Amino acid sequence: MAQLVECVPNFSEGRRPEVISEIIKEITSVDGITLLDHEMDASHNRAVVTFVGPPMAAKEAAFRGIRKASELIDMRTHTGEHPRMGATDVCPFIPIAEMTVPECITLARELAAEVGEKLHIPVYLYEDAATSPERKDLAVVRKGEYEGIRDELGKVPSRKPDFGPNEMNLKAGATAIGVRLPLVAFNAYLNTNNIKVANAIAKAIRSRSGGFAFCKALGFEIKERNCVQVSMNLVNYPKTPIHRVFETIKLEAARYGVNVTSSEIIGLVPNDALVMASEYYLRLENFSTAQILEEKLKKSAQTQKK
Amino acid sequence: MAQLVECVPNFSEGRRPEVISEIIKEITSVDGITLLDHEMDASHNRAVVTFVGPPMAAKEAAFRGIRKASELIDMRTHTGEHPRMGATDVCPFIPIAEMTVPECITLARELAAEVGEKLHIPVYLYEDAATSPERKDLAVVRKGEYEGIRDELGKVPSRKPDFGPNEMNLKAGATAIGVRLPLVAFNAYLNTNNIKVANAIAKAIRSRSGGFAFCKALGFEIKERNCVQVSMNLVNYPKTPIHRVFETIKLEAARYGVNVTSSEIIGLVPNDALVMASEYYLRLENFSTAQILEEKLKKSAQTQKK
Repeated sequence: MAQLVECVPNFSEGRRPEVISEIIKEITSVDGITLLDHEMDASHNRAVVTFVGPPMAAKEAAFRGIRKASELIDMRTHTGEHPRMGATDVCPFIPIAEMTVPECITLARELAAEVGEKLHIPVYLYEDAATSPERKDLAVVRKGEYEGIRDELGKVPSRKPDFGPNEMNLKAGATAIGVRLPLVAFNAYLNTNNIKVANAIAKAIRSRSGGFAFCKALGFEIKERNCVQVSMNLVNYPKTPIHRVFETIKLEAARYGVNVTSSEIIGLVPNDALVMASEYYLRLENFSTAQILEEKLKKSAQTQKK
Repeated sequence: MAQLVECVPNFSEGRRPEVISEIIKEITSVDGITLLDHEMDASHNRAVVTFVGPPMAAKEAAFRGIRKASELIDMRTHTGEHPRMGATDVCPFIPIAEMTVPECITLARELAAEVGEKLHIPVYLYEDAATSPERKDLAVVRKGEYEGIRDELGKVPSRKPDFGPNEMNLKAGATAIGVRLPLVAFNAYLNTNNIKVANAIAKAIRSRSGGFAFCKALGFEIKERNCVQVSMNLVNYPKTPIHRVFETIKLEAARYGVNVTSSEIIGLVPNDALVMASEYYLRLENFSTAQILEEKLKKSAQTQKK
């Protein structure tokens, strides 16, 4: 199977569709790139573009997108609700097929070096590509946003970027380039409207209060259904799998005499994450994804093409 | 997504690899056909060939394989352990992608008509393509094997084939062409070596003794593991899904104070069958396979190709 990486750059422009069109045109001008999605938000004044491709193509497409954004977006006059620090605010790579996280990190570093050198933009590596534990957290990297970073660059040593100049690119701002795993947005509904129960369960399962290392969780009231929900982001599903979190929610809910009535996955989920749940619940032994009919078909088709 | 059908013809030749090579050469001479697998068994004197392709290509490939087999295999001198009635003994179509069962039945009927007319071979439609309830069962269609069918054709009205002459093709025999869903071979291991428990559970879950309509099951002793196994074929996993059978095995085992220690899938499984298990156990609501990242990638890549 061919190597495939996803890239989800966020651009600080959510009001001028023609600007995002231009950027997408640059990205998709690279051979082998498939555009998956693009969304704009006017109040956030931000756009999210999702594309996939082989690693070298994805790196080149990301570079062209960042270059175009630096030409068309001026951070000196940018306003919007969403925190931001650059024309290309963040640019994460996500391994999809036949890619390891270290391979993605190499890709991120190469892109960061190119952006720093050729476009004179300060670049911070974040999440799995971070060069220090603090910089794993985007919120730490972006603290103070464009204005704060502009004022501290070259003065506060901890602000020194991983690549590019140690001073702000006044027009393009600064950019965070990183690596993360595909995120699974997963919600569980409870047969109660008591928000305290949802909050208590969220607290029990989420990383920052002692729960699972790669689980973020909050309790929410869902008024139209007269119930509450535990809303989650699983940021590393191979290590904190859906089924383990789900079973723990059921156990914690039972503590309050409450049941989980249903769950939902928001947006996309890697097939692997569902297969892992099947393997767990069906107690499958020695199962290999090579046994999945569709995988076999894909492999056979590729072998014959060679 | 493109339409894709699988075809698994069984040929009455398991000792002369050059004959099967010739047949496979015919099959794969059709554009768009992917050979997935081929197996020969000398004591059965039988070969199983598995290929996939778009419907029209798969029909043409099956026809060419049946024609070549009728030239190279002589049923008048054929012996082997496996029941058989023709040079091409059976030829089932299996819907894989964007194909309905009725569409596969049309394909099977078209192939059967062509084989009957052009090759003068009596053809019986079986399983989901059968024209009467009795003929759904291959064992009924093939009763008496080559010799029995040869002697009764043209004399016993119930033997009249669906297509082709109402007399035996002495060299090529008769052929069954049909439609079935992908079969899931699934085994559950118990923490006992008491075969009676495995047999009792198999009886409880299998169709012919009152269990699930699309489940075949037997108990087996697994000496090297000092335990017993419930061995199953799920012949319609959308209607008799893995998880429902598995949960019933757990319940029945509990009746004897026994636990299911693990399970296994033998060979290939449609991804969908595993996704159904995940949906059940995770209590997912409103889940669509369009949410699977890999599906989205496939669809986007195809859209861009157009």
